[in-house]
Amino acid sequence: MGTESVSNPDHYMSLAIENCRTGFAAGDGGPFGACIVRDGEVIATSHNTVLRDNDPTAHAEINAIRQAARHLRHWDLSACEIYSTTEPCPMCFSAIHWSRIGVIYMGTRIADVAALGFSELPVSNELLNELGRLKIRLVAGVAEAACRRLLADWQGQSQATAY
Amino acid sequence: MGTESVSNPDHYMSLAIENCRTGFAAGDGGPFGACIVRDGEVIATSHNTVLRDNDPTAHAEINAIRQAARHLRHWDLSACEIYSTTEPCPMCFSAIHWSRIGVIYMGTRIADVAALGFSELPVSNELLNELGRLKIRLVAGVAEAACRRLLADWQGQSQATAY
Repeated sequence: MGTESVSNPDHYMSLAIENCRTGFAAGDGGPFGACIVRDGEVIATSHNTVLRDNDPTAHAEINAIRQAARHLRHWDLSACEIYSTTEPCPMCFSAIHWSRIGVIYMGTRIADVAALGFSELPVSNELLNELGRLKIRLVAGVAEAACRRLLADWQGQSQATAY
Repeated sequence: MGTESVSNPDHYMSLAIENCRTGFAAGDGGPFGACIVRDGEVIATSHNTVLRDNDPTAHAEINAIRQAARHLRHWDLSACEIYSTTEPCPMCFSAIHWSRIGVIYMGTRIADVAALGFSELPVSNELLNELGRLKIRLVAGVAEAACRRLLADWQGQSQATAY
């Protein structure tokens, strides 16, 4: 990964994927996982729990940000980076902005999950960076094949519910 | 309000304002309040608790949506409308989308609070509606003078912290 500050983005993404799989096997929500890392230490790993918690805000990234902030006892996560199996939706991207996380590693893209039937807003992280005059660093295609397999496996489940 | 479906938006906004005042007097977070109404019944009233809860996602609207969803025991709030003392930020607007709330009543605008020093993304609800191909109904300027007074009073506090 050349100049990346972490030694192995694929490793952290694999933790997000693993957490995601336990979640959608249980019917917790969509096939989305996230992981937050600070100085090489994993401080939060979560997945989408919208259905389990009856909470429309309980996306993987929001859950992970809340978990990381509880862990650090501060809302400012500026020393952290986030790994998302799919590009964060505008809600999660904006939450990342508010938490001051400076780097997003992502696998699949918003368009990939919109194709599954989720009501995704077709607004990319690049566009939000531009509109918001932000400089959040975006690293796309991390462990992409494994993230794509996650979506396919979710879609193959009989109880898969898009929302 | 002519064809509005509620009899008195100013009344519901006053509940959001009142809740907001108790919150910022206690130093819970920024001067932002929200209220969610379903068939004329108030099902959630909240304010920004980012500082109190050390949670960067704890904006008034996110708190109110989570409260309303707990109350209804469902993530789908499509029969609801939300009152926000200030135009919802992109995180909150997108959460409103995910929760299927169809109407947003707002007092002041994002630009008004950006002027207070908050790291607001300069992305309006109108623009997000357009980019997201959504039709969330936006009613601006509700109890605007009272909402503007809220911002001024917050700014006058010695412990006011923008983030």
